[in-house]
Amino acid sequence: MPDNTSLKPADLDNTPWDHKWGFADTEFVVHEDRTVELTGKRYNLSGYRMPDLIPYVEEVLGIDLNIHDLKPELEHKPIAPPVRNEGFCAAVVKEFKPDQYSFTDRDRLLHSHGQTTTDEVYKVLYGRLDRFADMVFFCESEADAKKIIDLARAHNVCLVPYGGGTSVSCALQLPPTEKRMIVSVDLRRMNKIEWIDRENLRACVQAGIVGADLEEELGKQGLICGHEPDSIELSTLGGWIATNASGMKKNRYGNIEDIVENITLITPEGVIEQKAPLCRSSIGMQPQNLLFGNEGNLGLITKAVIKIHPKPEVTRYGSLVFPDMETGTRYLYELAHSGVLPASIRLVDNIQFRFGLALKGRTDSALQKVMGDIKKFFVVKVKGFDPDRMVAATLVMEGAANEVAHQEKHLYRLAKKYNGLPGGAEAGQRGYMLTYAIAYIRDFVAKFHVIGETFETSVPWSKIRQVCTAVEKRLGEKHKEFNLPGKFYISYRITQVYHTGVCIYFMYALYTKGIDHPEEIYDRIEYSLRQAILENGGSISHHHGVGKLRKDFMNDTLSPASIEFLRRAKQCVDPQNIFGVSNNVFADGNEP
Amino acid sequence: MPDNTSLKPADLDNTPWDHKWGFADTEFVVHEDRTVELTGKRYNLSGYRMPDLIPYVEEVLGIDLNIHDLKPELEHKPIAPPVRNEGFCAAVVKEFKPDQYSFTDRDRLLHSHGQTTTDEVYKVLYGRLDRFADMVFFCESEADAKKIIDLARAHNVCLVPYGGGTSVSCALQLPPTEKRMIVSVDLRRMNKIEWIDRENLRACVQAGIVGADLEEELGKQGLICGHEPDSIELSTLGGWIATNASGMKKNRYGNIEDIVENITLITPEGVIEQKAPLCRSSIGMQPQNLLFGNEGNLGLITKAVIKIHPKPEVTRYGSLVFPDMETGTRYLYELAHSGVLPASIRLVDNIQFRFGLALKGRTDSALQKVMGDIKKFFVVKVKGFDPDRMVAATLVMEGAANEVAHQEKHLYRLAKKYNGLPGGAEAGQRGYMLTYAIAYIRDFVAKFHVIGETFETSVPWSKIRQVCTAVEKRLGEKHKEFNLPGKFYISYRITQVYHTGVCIYFMYALYTKGIDHPEEIYDRIEYSLRQAILENGGSISHHHGVGKLRKDFMNDTLSPASIEFLRRAKQCVDPQNIFGVSNNVFADGNEP
Repeated sequence: MPDNTSLKPADLDNTPWDHKWGFADTEFVVHEDRTVELTGKRYNLSGYRMPDLIPYVEEVLGIDLNIHDLKPELEHKPIAPPVRNEGFCAAVVKEFKPDQYSFTDRDRLLHSHGQTTTDEVYKVLYGRLDRFADMVFFCESEADAKKIIDLARAHNVCLVPYGGGTSVSCALQLPPTEKRMIVSVDLRRMNKIEWIDRENLRACVQAGIVGADLEEELGKQGLICGHEPDSIELSTLGGWIATNASGMKKNRYGNIEDIVENITLITPEGVIEQKAPLCRSSIGMQPQNLLFGNEGNLGLITKAVIKIHPKPEVTRYGSLVFPDMETGTRYLYELAHSGVLPASIRLVDNIQFRFGLALKGRTDSALQKVMGDIKKFFVVKVKGFDPDRMVAATLVMEGAANEVAHQEKHLYRLAKKYNGLPGGAEAGQRGYMLTYAIAYIRDFVAKFHVIGETFETSVPWSKIRQVCTAVEKRLGEKHKEFNLPGKFYISYRITQVYHTGVCIYFMYALYTKGIDHPEEIYDRIEYSLRQAILENGGSISHHHGVGKLRKDFMNDTLSPASIEFLRRAKQCVDPQNIFGVSNNVFADGNEP
Repeated sequence: MPDNTSLKPADLDNTPWDHKWGFADTEFVVHEDRTVELTGKRYNLSGYRMPDLIPYVEEVLGIDLNIHDLKPELEHKPIAPPVRNEGFCAAVVKEFKPDQYSFTDRDRLLHSHGQTTTDEVYKVLYGRLDRFADMVFFCESEADAKKIIDLARAHNVCLVPYGGGTSVSCALQLPPTEKRMIVSVDLRRMNKIEWIDRENLRACVQAGIVGADLEEELGKQGLICGHEPDSIELSTLGGWIATNASGMKKNRYGNIEDIVENITLITPEGVIEQKAPLCRSSIGMQPQNLLFGNEGNLGLITKAVIKIHPKPEVTRYGSLVFPDMETGTRYLYELAHSGVLPASIRLVDNIQFRFGLALKGRTDSALQKVMGDIKKFFVVKVKGFDPDRMVAATLVMEGAANEVAHQEKHLYRLAKKYNGLPGGAEAGQRGYMLTYAIAYIRDFVAKFHVIGETFETSVPWSKIRQVCTAVEKRLGEKHKEFNLPGKFYISYRITQVYHTGVCIYFMYALYTKGIDHPEEIYDRIEYSLRQAILENGGSISHHHGVGKLRKDFMNDTLSPASIEFLRRAKQCVDPQNIFGVSNNVFADGNEP
């Protein structure tokens, strides 16, 4: 993918893994010589040997990794027989085409969890989920959506909207207490662009479209949407709205709430939508505004009108290195308030910086190697950067050529004030694209008894250090408390900047060899880390959402009357709780 | 105010007019020589003779204005005796200080209408309102707010929040059908900045603070909020939220929904707020998002956390002239999508451009006059601009010096492509500041039987011309249908640009000499113009809101289930309809 023209190249087999992240042509594998390779040819990380990754893992976790000591994945994954509401089943058979519903174990299991929640994936691969979808329904039209809801009401069946399945908050976990038949409503067949309004730069798009496909289709007409969440290869427009998603290039294109101008949500009590997409308006209270982050609790999102853009004249990557995280953060602060921001800027800490280096191959040409050494010498010796403290920022600038030139000049000029040194466009592009490939890491290290995850928060500028320190401290305490082997791994990056704060994205990992039910310990630790975040001024989530994973922290987020309002508001559109996925304040544990 | 340091100078008497727009030291008066003067010294329009204004009015309305033929304002304005809920009154007397409540006719009348709705002001000055506030309560704290709501619940009294009183949508009109005692809750004593967080650039501000005072207070610490609605001298933070307000400099500082990070709303069922202000987060459905545009229907907004900014290093004005509106609009379109926008850019049509000229004095120095003539010659003769078609844009650029320089270069370079010519910084500043002074025009011309108003809408780029043409056509038809004397006046400006559309701000006026109940004809015409806007692709409002004036058009704006959802949602927080001001979908005519 070095040319950045497609995130789902048509010449590749885009079949996704069944229960793991990503596409089945891509996985990290370890060779006998302990080099690691990302299979396939999909990413710029694909197809070469990485000699430094295993040593990096060993170093940061303080372990010796036996590459033959694998944690065996279950071959036959257990699943309960479906709960069948016979009246409903008969009606579905009568009303829909045979290929629109499935009772197969595979389809049911695939729709019973998010693909990216460690807790859930762990249970699928090595244990057993608590509750399964009883039927999968493939929705093909707005009429289908209305009909399936009507049937669900008539027969008292629980419906759960399903998009890309990339939830990281247990939002797709099915409530074990749900006695009714649960139907997972897969919306990915609703993947058409209904219309494009070129002059007003709007498109009406069906909600089941996958991000990469949306960009592919728009790209054919010289257009883009520009919303690039890390999950763009798999996640859907409807899922973005339901999760209140954020894109890497939000500085230029906005987060999802800035992009969407109309949402069509089919609820049991009717269709919530505007009569037309609205440019900024004052129409009184806007029900639309409440739909961002609904997490599947209200109904089926069938389409949305989104802002689109002509393809930018120029996309330019860049990178900067700073002596340490504090200096880099001060740079971000000034940049964020300077009036000029690149489409994306991310600052990785020293540990993630070194992780990036560990993913390199040894295929550099002699010249590149020499150049690299010169740079390294300059950075470390001349500027006095400490290799164990230095950090890096990746930049993406987009727009008209003169605008990009202006941004670039501004970015690098300001960087000087903070001892920042340009690290080159290639490093920037590599850093930006790494996002897609490293998503496969978790499933790789899991094989070697390493359990890990990412989590994120938004934090006021003044609390960045405090939150990071608190998280690291808490993780250390828990690592000790649970008597886990080796060292704990924690690193972070700042992925978004705002006027009043930033998004911090943490990666952490624990070695769990010899530990019983590591996923339970993991859950307790993750919970405790979120507590630490909230106690120190961070938020419940920047863009992953709440789901069930973070439901207990809603009381730290909203006033009691706000929570009560949400519960009552749901009853206004779904009095029977047809959409009983029970996320957020509707989760069982959160009921009054 | 030419130095732009204060919108409510402390050395002036800032007493507002009782029922008209603005401050009592300022009004347009006509002298015997038919020159017009804006009294006082508050504005850059103040204190000189305008010889061209009366001729302009005569020309555009096709009338001969007799400056002695004045429409007499009622000296004693009628008011009904108050509806008194004795139990409630006794409780208020017991619980609050004597200066916190008032039954005087003056206070009651002042709180029974918006200061800027033609229909209402007309009734006050020349006729009679339908319903009056029965008591005015001056809320001084959050505890007061809770207590007055509790008393209102206990005694079944109707509460109506009151901020700056600058509503233009009949949102402050009291429902004639309301049988309960109506208490206007004036929040302007809650006008403190509670805290400032300089590092994270946030401030917690009580909701009753007037915009100009907010900027004054922040200014003492080198800070600004940057929200500048036309009403900033009088309107309040709480009012901005309730109306979903827009500021002239939104390109830099955002509209109100971009500025506010936490709202505290006291409802009969508790306090809707976040536990802390949130930088962008994904917390599930956000009740806060529903509060923008609540139009007083839900409760009392007592405070909000807002974004603040260091005072910009540079504020620079500018102006451009274009051969015609179409060309100017095409310029705006390209500029809006160029990635660089000044804090404010507004484009006035030829009629408003000439209106601006009609407000000039004859005090120009000889040199200025010569320069003016040269410019005029250049524009009209050399560039071939038609004086009856040319239009003007005013610009405000703010930020760091190098950013402002970049913006300026970009703006003027792009203007060349559209035959735009720089008109100078002075003209730009004058155009920007004119906004505040011309707000007094309506009350001036009303004396001479001229009834006029402004109204606004947001429109997709492609529909700008269609909407403007339709409005003008409809006004012509109505002018004929009602057999009104003279000609009708209509002009417009584009005041905001967005990715998918713009805000159009119309000014219109009708001569009603000899017409019975002109306010009724005016109402019917305004209604019909809004119909024309909606039929042609405009929205119900860009920033004025819906109130009662536009309530019938909500069915053209939201789906039936959306409207029903809002009605039910209100019941979740206000089951007794204590906040019975009945705006928007809660208006009588809009009930199911």
